Amino acid sequence: MPQLVGNALIGQSGGPTCVINQSLVGVIETCMDSDAVQKIYGARHGIAGILTDDLIDLGRESRETLEAVAKTPCAALRSVRKKPTREECVEVLQALKRHEVRFFFYLGGNDSAETAHILNEVAMQENYEVRLFHVPKTIDNDLRVTDHCPGYGSAAKFVASAFMGDNQDNRSLPGIKIDVVMGRHAGWLTAASLLAREHEDDGPHLIYVPERVFDMDRFIADVEGSYRRNGRCLVAVSEGIHGPDGELIVKSAETDSHGNVQLSGSGALGDMLAAEVKKRLGSDLRVRADTFGYLQRSFAGYASETDATEAREVGRTAARIATSGERPHGSIFIQRHSTDGAYRASFEVCDLKEVAKETRDMEEGFLSGDNDIDPSFRDYVRPLVGQMPTAARLSDFPL
Amino acid sequence: MPQLVGNALIGQSGGPTCVINQSLVGVIETCMDSDAVQKIYGARHGIAGILTDDLIDLGRESRETLEAVAKTPCAALRSVRKKPTREECVEVLQALKRHEVRFFFYLGGNDSAETAHILNEVAMQENYEVRLFHVPKTIDNDLRVTDHCPGYGSAAKFVASAFMGDNQDNRSLPGIKIDVVMGRHAGWLTAASLLAREHEDDGPHLIYVPERVFDMDRFIADVEGSYRRNGRCLVAVSEGIHGPDGELIVKSAETDSHGNVQLSGSGALGDMLAAEVKKRLGSDLRVRADTFGYLQRSFAGYASETDATEAREVGRTAARIATSGERPHGSIFIQRHSTDGAYRASFEVCDLKEVAKETRDMEEGFLSGDNDIDPSFRDYVRPLVGQMPTAARLSDFPL
Repeated sequence: MPQLVGNALIGQSGGPTCVINQSLVGVIETCMDSDAVQKIYGARHGIAGILTDDLIDLGRESRETLEAVAKTPCAALRSVRKKPTREECVEVLQALKRHEVRFFFYLGGNDSAETAHILNEVAMQENYEVRLFHVPKTIDNDLRVTDHCPGYGSAAKFVASAFMGDNQDNRSLPGIKIDVVMGRHAGWLTAASLLAREHEDDGPHLIYVPERVFDMDRFIADVEGSYRRNGRCLVAVSEGIHGPDGELIVKSAETDSHGNVQLSGSGALGDMLAAEVKKRLGSDLRVRADTFGYLQRSFAGYASETDATEAREVGRTAARIATSGERPHGSIFIQRHSTDGAYRASFEVCDLKEVAKETRDMEEGFLSGDNDIDPSFRDYVRPLVGQMPTAARLSDFPL
Repeated sequence: MPQLVGNALIGQSGGPTCVINQSLVGVIETCMDSDAVQKIYGARHGIAGILTDDLIDLGRESRETLEAVAKTPCAALRSVRKKPTREECVEVLQALKRHEVRFFFYLGGNDSAETAHILNEVAMQENYEVRLFHVPKTIDNDLRVTDHCPGYGSAAKFVASAFMGDNQDNRSLPGIKIDVVMGRHAGWLTAASLLAREHEDDGPHLIYVPERVFDMDRFIADVEGSYRRNGRCLVAVSEGIHGPDGELIVKSAETDSHGNVQLSGSGALGDMLAAEVKKRLGSDLRVRADTFGYLQRSFAGYASETDATEAREVGRTAARIATSGERPHGSIFIQRHSTDGAYRASFEVCDLKEVAKETRDMEEGFLSGDNDIDPSFRDYVRPLVGQMPTAARLSDFPL
């Protein structure tokens, strides 16, 4: 394959993560060090910025600024929720040609992989040589092929720490507490609440994920049983839980251009579940609901070191493979190697279409019944969250 | 004053904080080191545990366990929301006598100070000598006398970091975002969102606290103006905002035994404000609301070091003054000494009744108009939150 020489263009897309700028900086610094790359451009607000020619020059940034940006949560290039039409992809390709872009990196989830895939088809049809790479990110951890997604470890650390604290809160002032966690299609992030369990009676006592059908009657019975057993009950619920018909339990009328229904940015699901528990189990019960919301994907200063390091490396790998001409296009994925219980990751590349469109549910083995997560999931998630606090108890020695 | 010798009893009360166990351990370790203290008891669930004789032996805990407990959020002794009647206070005193308790420490907010104050009156009437001390804690920072309250710095750090991240989120995917922060009577915690502002156009762009009357029409006009100016708008709102009649904007039917209305553990206020913005400014606007909820007071692993150190010292001070016989009863407070811009705190004692019942609003000088906080507040809050992340931006160099 010929080694291309030209300009690079980078865009960020979809919901932010705490480490997406690590990947951005990984791409930029590797491009800076490559002879194949002349100018390094950034598109503000992803594909929307390319369509409106809203580009900036990233090659002039100092390494010091880049390092500080890498540690800052959310898309420094600004993001977008836009699925371009085929006509718009043709327009985007015109822009790439106009700016002599030979390396294009799109940082995002499965929708962004699909955009890169369509762009690649258009480029091949028009015979324009450009290296098109998808750099994965999502707190939902629901991309195919990869063992886990950059962004997930930090969000999982946040969720686990929130549950660890809330379990102590619930133990301090007993009652029924429902916490709603992000996760439209898959329960990966909600499942991370499992890490809060250290002692036998620690919460979350019940965990509901979208991989299972949610049944209100069973939910109420579960809560009642747990409350009777423990004198309190902490519940983790994915925002994407749905009934047997696949309909969400609570859904807003709003959808984005990918057809995704708005789930976050509202306390509706938690409040509805809390009201239902009160109605059925007694209005004198202390029932509360919190919805963790955007904090899960954007909270500053609490990223997982493992996640940060891997996100950086994923960006570097994309730029290295693109500029070396090793492959014309692709999506980067993380492979897990566990030898003697020690966690190690390598960074590989697969075809864009393997990652595009579809999402990945949790494996059956990680689920336990319809209201819990299997303890084996702990081994999966533990290395990804990095350093975690621990929760200690008094011994409650009798007098 | 005669030096008493006898047993010590400790209880925790009210909403948890991330460092309340630092104070608990400060009391315990100082009692362990005192010749005046024989046994060290803990009441589970505060005053409720004393009434039901649910006591544990804290003197047998290892220093290692205590150190681990100190770092764990929420009440290790478990908490309670209970305002004892005068009759119950008489019962409590019987229990103190029965267990030969000569040193009683109650860790809590203004309601707990009041409980300690009433207990003290009962003890004096009955001529039972017992050293009664209130050890302050509250994330609300609304106790009188003290410069600031143990627990506040950590909650403020959480809120500031959440806003720092959410400001980046809002910049990534522009829209109108409303974040609801704890604070029933006072805006101290909501005001900490100010620390998220680093660049001129950083949010929160609007801050609403209970010290001001909330007017829906002005709120909508403020949001519209800010959105027009910045292309986005991030809003910080105290859960305790109210109309000119003092009525809460959204209120649930639930109250505790102190007559406090339940505000937290529901997304109702944020969802209502978001719906109102959409209704008045256009349903096609991207409007979201998050309610930070219990995470603010219980999140594990992210306490302020300053807050943790001070909470420990407040507990130690209470036990030192009680056991030395320096004073028969009192509440510990923190005094700020700022020399040449360097922050230093000392730990003092005042009368129980100075802290009981009433709360403390933010000073007028810290407020700016009816929708913002004065920049001078930054000097007040900055030393209390300890280490904070920073948010960096790309330079957006033109092509």
